Amino acid sequence: MKKFINKTDDILAESLSGFALAHSDLVSLNLNPNFLTRAKKKQPKTTNKVAIISGGGSGHEPLHAGYIGYGMLDAACPSHVFSSPTPDQMLAAAEAVHAGMGVLFIVKNYAGDVMNFEMASEMLAFENATVLTSDDCAVINSTYTTGRRGVAGTVIVEKCVGSLAETGASLPACKALGDKVNIRTASIGVALTSCTVPAAGRPTFDISDAEIEMGVGIHGEPGRKREAMREAEAIIKDMVDAIFADFKARNINTNSEVLLLINGFGATPLMELYLIYNSAAKLLAETGLKITRSLVGNYTTAIDMAGASITVCLLDDEIRQHWDSPVHTAALRWGC
Amino acid sequence: MKKFINKTDDILAESLSGFALAHSDLVSLNLNPNFLTRAKKKQPKTTNKVAIISGGGSGHEPLHAGYIGYGMLDAACPSHVFSSPTPDQMLAAAEAVHAGMGVLFIVKNYAGDVMNFEMASEMLAFENATVLTSDDCAVINSTYTTGRRGVAGTVIVEKCVGSLAETGASLPACKALGDKVNIRTASIGVALTSCTVPAAGRPTFDISDAEIEMGVGIHGEPGRKREAMREAEAIIKDMVDAIFADFKARNINTNSEVLLLINGFGATPLMELYLIYNSAAKLLAETGLKITRSLVGNYTTAIDMAGASITVCLLDDEIRQHWDSPVHTAALRWGC
Repeated sequence: MKKFINKTDDILAESLSGFALAHSDLVSLNLNPNFLTRAKKKQPKTTNKVAIISGGGSGHEPLHAGYIGYGMLDAACPSHVFSSPTPDQMLAAAEAVHAGMGVLFIVKNYAGDVMNFEMASEMLAFENATVLTSDDCAVINSTYTTGRRGVAGTVIVEKCVGSLAETGASLPACKALGDKVNIRTASIGVALTSCTVPAAGRPTFDISDAEIEMGVGIHGEPGRKREAMREAEAIIKDMVDAIFADFKARNINTNSEVLLLINGFGATPLMELYLIYNSAAKLLAETGLKITRSLVGNYTTAIDMAGASITVCLLDDEIRQHWDSPVHTAALRWGC
Repeated sequence: MKKFINKTDDILAESLSGFALAHSDLVSLNLNPNFLTRAKKKQPKTTNKVAIISGGGSGHEPLHAGYIGYGMLDAACPSHVFSSPTPDQMLAAAEAVHAGMGVLFIVKNYAGDVMNFEMASEMLAFENATVLTSDDCAVINSTYTTGRRGVAGTVIVEKCVGSLAETGASLPACKALGDKVNIRTASIGVALTSCTVPAAGRPTFDISDAEIEMGVGIHGEPGRKREAMREAEAIIKDMVDAIFADFKARNINTNSEVLLLINGFGATPLMELYLIYNSAAKLLAETGLKITRSLVGNYTTAIDMAGASITVCLLDDEIRQHWDSPVHTAALRWGC
């Protein structure tokens, strides 16, 4: 394993400190318990909005700290690589950012995350609700999951709910939008290589040069099956087909404009992500679907995995409006 | 070699097509000859500005096409991976975007790029000038270079010159600012792994798990020396020292605020880039330097290399102003 690290135990604190330094205009960092909020100096505690909080294991950067800021998250609770954060982090974060209208947790559906956020929810003194993201259509139940996994679609949920919260919408309204976006979103990933968890020091799984892991999770969890490596277009066709089969199986009407997100897992060149976009866009066009919003890049990573995921979000007027609204975070910024 | 590609010969066209589709609000693509301009539909041909054009081999994405748009480039001429573009591309791009005030080429100092842009410069019917970027302090002369290489500092040159050009400044003024930013900028890179050029199908160089290539180029060219892998902070200290030794050797007064750019080469997790930022910021603080602007991410890549570069730009009022000004491109966006 070759990584830019000092001591394995210090990776999280050092990386978070670098993030907070580089973006001191946007975020403030608290260590022990670890959480980040919008910068206290320049963005005084907002009132009259639902506080939007997410969190999870590290290794998926820029998720979630990279999405703290106007129009998106109020706080994030990062834990060690691929480990769940603990309730003390969520409670401290909630205490720091709540503004009288309750707290909405956005939680990717993994057993550890769900359990810890549930404990925090029960212990929290004020009104709160949770949106569980479960956009990964690759598998039902998995290594760390009961039910579908939450993956890159989480970014779209956080963007839309964050936008709605800025308007002063109620906690139930924010939760309802988050649930709707999650339902209208489906993702599937593929790995060319494994990720390497620093504390483990070796690749999470073995994979030959002739193989790919179709439906891989963002922690390197097994997907649907080990398949033969082949041309990009054939891989992408299978992924797009899986997404639309999933919408069909869930009786979701796909007759709408779509947001297409091509997400890199950390080690995939942008050149290849745009090539994937090109193929996916062609395949969607053939089915008569119109892509009206796009996002291409590393938005929900699996440390240093070579691989990518495709996410399709079925837009409606409300989702499109909240996707388009101004956002100012380290990883997503437009309109301000 | 495992990559998301179809046929090796089609990578460039497919990737560029995906880029142009995903950012159709920002760019328009011309194939044969290959060049991209600001989107024709929404941004009608600007008048009364110097046209800023860059280009070079692909594999460094988002450089350069990702920097086309308001406040930065007017056009970019990408060639195949690590190959120089040809004069017909620059001439066609210049013809498409010139607006009566001349053309400024921003060219990374590699022999092939320099030769081809020089030919274009001579053939061009209207006034033009060139800024050669040469911020890499690792080596003098290299595999593809006479003199210092142009690397990630090129992004800062493109941002500042692009900003000045929007004000209607003259061609000599734009060239002068570009040259000044280049002189006040120094970079050095380090590789943990080699990149793999698709057409070659195998890593450009061999490197063991116990080694790093200090001073590596963005095409995988040799750097200063092969060194032992060690803790991040020790590596980063050597890099920061090299940068300040370079400023000193060039008699550049470093008594100023700085912009610190931590650039990933394509396969380095964001978590590690922020850890590098943390160490570099600490080292700069110890020397009494104040970092007032930061950029962390994949901005000038070497395909799928694991590695990173550190760039320090010595700010003055003019450079800071043009760095801060609004920019709207695929890869850099703020203020609009």
